[in-house]
Order: sequence, then structure tokens, then C-alpha cells
Amino acid sequence: MKTDIEIANSIVPQPIETIADQINIPKEDLYLYGPHKAKLNLSLLKDQATKGKLVLVTAINPTPAGEGKTTTTVGLGDALNKAGRRTVIALREPSLGPVFGIKGGATGGGYAQVIPMEDINLHFTGDMHAITSANNLLSAAIDNHIHQGNALGIDPRRISWKRCLDMNDRALRRIVCGLGGPANGMPREEGFDITVASEVMAILCLANNLTDLKDRLGRIIIGENFAGDYVSAKDLQVHGAMAMLLKDALKPNLVQTLEGTPAIIHGGPFANIAHGCNSIIATKMALSFGDIAVTEAGFGADLGAEKFFDIKCRYAGLEPSAVVVVATVRALKYNGGVAKDDLGTENLEALEDGLPNLLRHLDNIQKVYGLPAVVAINRFPTDTEAELDLIRKACRDRGVQVALSEVWAKGSAGGAELAEAVLALLDKPRQFTFAYPVEAPIKEKIQDIVTRIYRGRAVVYSAQAEKVIRQLTAAGYGDLPICMAKTQYSFSDEATRLGAPEDFTVTIQDLHVSAGAGFIVALCGSILTMPGLPKEPAALGMDVNAEGEVTGLF
Amino acid sequence: MKTDIEIANSIVPQPIETIADQINIPKEDLYLYGPHKAKLNLSLLKDQATKGKLVLVTAINPTPAGEGKTTTTVGLGDALNKAGRRTVIALREPSLGPVFGIKGGATGGGYAQVIPMEDINLHFTGDMHAITSANNLLSAAIDNHIHQGNALGIDPRRISWKRCLDMNDRALRRIVCGLGGPANGMPREEGFDITVASEVMAILCLANNLTDLKDRLGRIIIGENFAGDYVSAKDLQVHGAMAMLLKDALKPNLVQTLEGTPAIIHGGPFANIAHGCNSIIATKMALSFGDIAVTEAGFGADLGAEKFFDIKCRYAGLEPSAVVVVATVRALKYNGGVAKDDLGTENLEALEDGLPNLLRHLDNIQKVYGLPAVVAINRFPTDTEAELDLIRKACRDRGVQVALSEVWAKGSAGGAELAEAVLALLDKPRQFTFAYPVEAPIKEKIQDIVTRIYRGRAVVYSAQAEKVIRQLTAAGYGDLPICMAKTQYSFSDEATRLGAPEDFTVTIQDLHVSAGAGFIVALCGSILTMPGLPKEPAALGMDVNAEGEVTGLF
Repeated sequence: MKTDIEIANSIVPQPIETIADQINIPKEDLYLYGPHKAKLNLSLLKDQATKGKLVLVTAINPTPAGEGKTTTTVGLGDALNKAGRRTVIALREPSLGPVFGIKGGATGGGYAQVIPMEDINLHFTGDMHAITSANNLLSAAIDNHIHQGNALGIDPRRISWKRCLDMNDRALRRIVCGLGGPANGMPREEGFDITVASEVMAILCLANNLTDLKDRLGRIIIGENFAGDYVSAKDLQVHGAMAMLLKDALKPNLVQTLEGTPAIIHGGPFANIAHGCNSIIATKMALSFGDIAVTEAGFGADLGAEKFFDIKCRYAGLEPSAVVVVATVRALKYNGGVAKDDLGTENLEALEDGLPNLLRHLDNIQKVYGLPAVVAINRFPTDTEAELDLIRKACRDRGVQVALSEVWAKGSAGGAELAEAVLALLDKPRQFTFAYPVEAPIKEKIQDIVTRIYRGRAVVYSAQAEKVIRQLTAAGYGDLPICMAKTQYSFSDEATRLGAPEDFTVTIQDLHVSAGAGFIVALCGSILTMPGLPKEPAALGMDVNAEGEVTGLF
Repeated sequence: MKTDIEIANSIVPQPIETIADQINIPKEDLYLYGPHKAKLNLSLLKDQATKGKLVLVTAINPTPAGEGKTTTTVGLGDALNKAGRRTVIALREPSLGPVFGIKGGATGGGYAQVIPMEDINLHFTGDMHAITSANNLLSAAIDNHIHQGNALGIDPRRISWKRCLDMNDRALRRIVCGLGGPANGMPREEGFDITVASEVMAILCLANNLTDLKDRLGRIIIGENFAGDYVSAKDLQVHGAMAMLLKDALKPNLVQTLEGTPAIIHGGPFANIAHGCNSIIATKMALSFGDIAVTEAGFGADLGAEKFFDIKCRYAGLEPSAVVVVATVRALKYNGGVAKDDLGTENLEALEDGLPNLLRHLDNIQKVYGLPAVVAINRFPTDTEAELDLIRKACRDRGVQVALSEVWAKGSAGGAELAEAVLALLDKPRQFTFAYPVEAPIKEKIQDIVTRIYRGRAVVYSAQAEKVIRQLTAAGYGDLPICMAKTQYSFSDEATRLGAPEDFTVTIQDLHVSAGAGFIVALCGSILTMPGLPKEPAALGMDVNAEGEVTGLF
């Protein structure tokens, strides 16, 4: 069997101008990065209505068994194009950190990949690096301001802004900086996040244009002064330079799938402390130049789709037309209690026990958000007909169609059934509504998410959370949408409660305002924003030969 | 008077394919970054002999008055092209750090600039970011190795490898990382250098090809194990992944001057703890496709030219044909003891006192290195004829021609006299020799540099330096060239001893082997490898408007 990189390298990609021409993007609006990547001029959005239909690909709660969301998104795009519908895919950009950590890319797999896979997984067009620079310019400005006399009275003990690197580097999670005497600044506690966890990444993904980007950067709260008031990036006068560093990164990147479907890959914020979707600009660009835009959201539908709807669609003024929920027989059995090593064996009982996870996500999409949905089963060789029938029946009982997806093995041919099902949804009646009104008080919004989406019983707040809610409300941030930071493995805030847990409470330990991005992060427990490398990092197996050919990337 | 950015933006650049075509580089060997920047395929070097004549632009010891080395290099290239000689310029890449710190770009000035100036000064083609990533991957691998059991027995107290960022950020000079408990690794002292000070940068600039790059990365010494033996990047098995991250960064970048002269801008290591020149590959590329290649070296000739000859030319097998020493009347007067504010007034006596600085550099180039030289006076409006005559006479007495350079104000027209003088040198007899034989013991090489180039009396070693010399010699590193890390302001190791000091001793406080780059750094005092921002960083005045137009960059 061929590896992903072998398959990717076996295809001769089309010139990116040809891909752009397919969707009527003129050559003059491309800024080339070699023959197979281009940034798209932002002026393209001015002249176009976002006329296409928006399809979201989401999934059941993630498991070690894997769901194949990106692969399904890519394959669905290819299959829709094959079916004669002009389709553009919009995806997130991979982070370098995980590339070196565990095996596994972020460009799809098998015969459903975006290419040039190697470039996309490494530096791509430099967006991550620009975000790192902008983030760290703000950090340098903070410490320099304190060092040079601290006119703003920034309290070094209350700086929430952290430096970042696009690397899995646990040793940087908690540091003390400014050591070595007066020439080296003021000692204080500090830490690094991975770049995708930076608020700058979330801002890039939620900005509608360059002016909006700069305004949002200016609104970033970096901490408090000695009087307890928030200090912003604008107070430090550094948001203009940050926007300057990001002016090219804000342009979305056009590439192609193995089958030549246009794919716009842009931005990739964390899906816990941020909203986990590609950029608004990328999605609008896909909707401007495709009759259908297929995009994805991070983690399961409880986190990814919820934030896609309630944060991204709200800020962008976008209305989705249909939702694909990806599941695998293996992952459903895992949700039904089967151990990881036994997932290859038929087990209808466990499958039945795991199905409520899928059904609850479907119910949310249909009843809470008012959108039509289809289930895509990412098929594995070990899946039995009896297992597939069980899923089909359970979904049919709820009026939801199930389509097998074999895009990993067969490309667009393996996505024909799913494409047909999605096309059937596009003209169905829908009444898109949010899970909560944004103007409601913070606690009411959180309660809505917990009750309506997670189906928990109640929300409990720590004393710290209560304090921050009062502070945020008083400071005028009460009307921002909520970004829930909880485990991706469960509807609840406990990673081990698989399936469709009931009668649970969700505890909000703390909150944090990402005033630039424009949301309040509600933290259910501690979230790791800087991963570490495993015992055998993938990096150790990577190499490049004299001709520049890469091996071991995946 | 127009600012640099106004002048740069007033020119419509030629398509980079047109620039490449001028020097017979085929379109297929360009990897485009937009319409005006391209990376050059490394295979271009295989098919070409480096047939051109190499001209080095260096300078007297730098002063606050400025010398205009890059501006002179660019203007000379333009003037040589204008004179009908196919010329390619090879320059260093700017670092983002200083861009945000103090006013002043690294792309020349006035009518002698390389463009697109904005791109080159910001992210350019991402080389700096790739170097940052490769450097920090090694750091993450070190801390992860210790965290995962430390099979190599790395002594956390003896790790010399530092993390890096392309930012002026003094608060990162000395930190403690790995805090917060066992999940976050082993606490230890750490620090960040600015990216241009990373050994990875020096390696990129001294590598002859991708295989050489990888071998050099593998030879990097990251510190010692508990037994006191050196530990290398190869021991950590991470040099392959580092080379993979750098495979595109190793390709040199083609841009153009305001007058359409091809300029290859690639690499930019520190000129104290590293060798301060653009990459060997860039210089060889310029020599392959130009009849003349004009390049520059950092700081004054005592540091920059010495390392250019004794490190870069030695490793590259290059033989320079002529040397331009840039001076200004103002800087010579400063060397003669005039205060910064009084440099605009005629002062023949001070000029006469400052001249020995220039004359000693000339003497070194002619007598030590056996190369013909010309003095370029970067002319200022305040220079008087009497002052210029004084310089001319002093140089003529030594058989050296002086040419006025007015390229800042007039472009190539202002460089005609200098171009003519340089052309006259190219066919002069020369006998290029190094300042020291590389196979000599470490102390003898240092003594040669101090006696022959600096003209100091003696070298004094600290106890630490003595110890490290014994250790390096025993470990087999004794036959590497020496990279002197001393103040750039004086021939001596004291920044305040201007002019041509005599009878001084140079103290070597410590040494450090950059085994990957392939040199031994001899430290005369402490060298700052992470700059800080000033009280009013240039970043505060930078902005970008809704159309993406940048202001305040310079």
C-alpha cells in the first residue's frame, strides 16, 4: 500500500493558474509561491457576492480510532466537482508542532489529499511564522515598555499575554524571563503557547478585512495595570506594526486536491481556547468562487460545529446550507465502550451503545441550529454489513440519511454517494438559528450551550469564575459570544464519559476574554496550549536528500 | 527630499523573470514569490563555473556617523552594469529585530536600493523563519530527550545551545525554562539569541550544498554530557529534520536594484560571534551568472573582511579580485576624535588624525591578503574639497586610488568614478593569501590575527580560555579557522580606542566551538547576541492601511 506522501508525489499537480482559472479567478489576483501555491488578493472579495452554498463537515466526538474529517472534506469536494457542481474546499492550515510530534498530517489522506502536501505541512506560505512574529512583537513591546519606565503601570504579575512558537515544546510552558540583572528587563513569570493557540491566530481567522484585523489586534488585552484596569495592544501602540506583519498572512492560500479541486487553506486556531475553524476570508472566498463551499471545524460537533455556528457564522454573517457528520464504525464502538485493540471485531451491542453520541450531534444540528444533516461513514475494511445497517437504521429512524465514504481508498469515486446525499440536502428547507442570543448575560449563554448542545443538567462556577464574570460584565465584555474550552472527548467536561452522558454538571473553572478575537473563553479545567514531543518524535525519522527530496514526513 | 520607501515605491520593478533572463537564468530555475522575488534552484550551480571576478566591499571601523556600505555595494553594482559589465550583487538578508528597533533598513538607501524593499525588510521569502524553526526544533529535541529519560546523559547545566527568535527582546536573554512540575520537563537555565546569531544561520551561509548543510547541522555541539563529552545534533538524530526545514531556505533569493541590476540576497549571520557574510551559495551564484560579483561583509575590515577572507573564501575556495574600502569624511573625523555633533564642520586636523584607521585597513588588504584595493568616499554635502584632497593625497602616497561615491543621491551616475576605479583593479596582479594557516594551533592563529590585522602587541588568555583551548584541541577542533568576537568600533578590544591604536593587548575571555559552522569563536569580552528595543521603538510608528500600504517602515 502506498503512503500518503507516495500518493501525493505520484500526481503531477496542475499549475495553480489553471486551478484559479477553473473558478474564474484572474491571474492578476494571484500572488504566486512557486508553481502550485498562490495567495489570493483580498480585493477579490469586494467584487463578488458570497453566493455559494456552505457545507460544514463535522464529526462525532474524536477518539483514538480516528474519524477522517479532513479526508472526508477533501473527498466530498472532489466528488461534488465530479458530479458537475463547481466546488471549492476551505481548510485549516497545519501547525509545524504536531508534524514533528506524532505521525499524521493535516492535509487529508490516501486519495483524498490537498497538495503540495510537503509544502503545506512545512512552512507553506509563511502565515504561521507571520503570526508568531506579530504575537512576539507584542510581547517584546510589553517587556520593553516595563523596562523603559512602565508609563502605563503594567503589573508584571498580571500579564496574560504569552509568547508563542510553532513547536511542540513543553519546556517553554512555564518560564521566568527577564533574568540576569537590570539590563535584561524586569523578571517575571511567562510562558509560551504554540502559535495556533495565539489570539493573533483567532483574530486572523475572524477578521473580515485588513482594517478589521488591525482594530481587533488593537483590542487585545495583554493584562492589567496596577489599578486593575485592562491594558490593550492599542495602549502600547503596537497594533499597526502587528497588522503590517500580517498583511500578507491575511490573504488566503489557494492550492488543489489530488483531483484538481480548488482548495483554500488559511488559518488554523485551536478548537478549545479558540474557535477551531479556517478563516472567514477563506470561507467567503470559497463561497464567492464556488457554487458550493465545503469546510470543516475542529474536534467533534459539540465544540467545533457549535463554535463554527455561534462564533464564526455570527461574525461573518454566513448561513450554512447543510452539515455532514463524519463517523466511523470503529469510533462508534469505542464510544460504546470497546477497547482500542478490539475495534476490528464486529460488535453490534457496543455499536448500539455508541450510536447515541452520533444521534445527539445530529439532533443538535437539526433541532438547535435548524440545519439539514447527513452522516458520512468513513469506511474501514473491518466494518461489517450488519454494523453499517445498524447505523443506517438508527439514522433513518430520525429521518437522516447515511452515506458511505470511501474517498481515502478511491478518491472522488468513493465519495459519490455522499455527494449525492449532500446535494439532496442543499435545497431542503432550513431555519438557521444560533444556540444562544449573543446579547444575553454570560452565564445564560453558557447555560444555553451546556443545556441545549451538551445536554448537561447544570453549570457550576468556581469562585474565580464568578469573579471574572463580574469583572468582564462590568468592563463591557458581557455581550461577546462564548468560546467553550473543554475536553473534546466527551459531551461533558470529563474526558472519560464517552457516548451520550446524561445528568452531568459542567464546571467553569475560569474565564478569559479574547477581546481582539471577540469571544469569552470559558475554561472547564486546564487546557494545554503548548504540546510536548513524544518519546520517539516523528522528527527523528525525517530526512532530506541531496536533491531536496523529503522522507519520513508521514 | 524623498524618503527611502518613497523612492523605492516610485519605481515600477521589472518582472523577476526579466531580471533573471538578463543573466541567462532560465525561467524553469526560478521559484517565484510573487512577481518580484524568486528563489534560485540549487542545480544552477552544478552546471556553471564560478567564472566571475569577485569584488568585496568593506569599510573602516563603523561609527555613529555611518559609512553606507550596503548603499555603496548596490550603487557600485548599478554603475558597473551601466559601464557595460554584467554585474550581480550579493547581499545579506535583513533581520526583523532591528527593523522594529531603530530606524534604518538593510536594503541600501536613496537611489541605491534593492527592491521590493518592504518585502525584503519584512518576511522576505521566509528564510529567517525557517532558521528559527530549525534552531528551535533542536532545542525542543534537547529538552524532550532529557524529559524522556536522558539516554545520552545530557548535563542540563552544560547545554550551550540556545533557542532563538527574530526579535529584539532583551527579556529573553536569560530565562529559566521547564518550570511548573514534572510534566513540563527539567528546569534549567536557558536563553534566546536573535535568529541571525544562531549557528544555524552561520551554517546556512557556509554550506556548499544540501548534503554539506545536513552534515554541518549534525556536527553542531549542543553541550556536554555528565562525563564531560560533547553532545551533537547528530547524537539527537534531529539534523535530518532540521535540514528538511531548511531545504528551501538554502536556495538564494533573486531580486533587483532600483536600476534593474540583479541582486542575490541570502543569509545574514552576526559579524561578531559568526562571520558576517551572505551565503557561499549566493556568492557563487553571483559569480556564475555575473562577469563581476559585488558583495559585502559586516562591520569594518578588521572583523568583516578578515572573516570574509579567512573563513568564507577558505571554505568556498573563492579568490577575490579587488576590495573596496568605504569611508566617509565624517566617520574619519569621528575616528580622529571629533564629537558626533561637530562632524559637519571642516576639520583637517581631526581628519588627519582619523586617517590612520583607513590606511591600516588598506595596508592589511594589500600586504596581508595580497589584494588590490580602492577607497570609496561616500560623499556627504558637508564634505569640503580640502578634506577630500587630504584623503586623496594620503591614499595616493600609498599607491591607492580614491573614488567619490554619490550613489545615494544619483544612483549609478554617482558611482561611475568608483566603477572605473574598480575595473582598473580587476586585472592588477594579486597574490591572495590568508592571514593564518588553518592547521596552526589555536593560539598561533589568534596571534596572527591580532598581530597582522589588528596590529596589537600581545594576546592575553583568561584561565577559562586556556582551559577551553586545551579541551578543543584535545577534542580535535584545533584546526578550525578562528572567528573573532570583539568590538566592531576599534582595532583593539576596547570600543573607545578609535583611529589606529598601537601597543595594545587583546584579551581572550572565552572560546566556543561552532562545530557545525566550522569555526572557533574567540570572545574578547561579552557579546550581546539578543538586542533590546529602544525607548521609542520604530515599531510604534509603523502602520498599514486598508489597501495594504505600509507606512513608517523607514
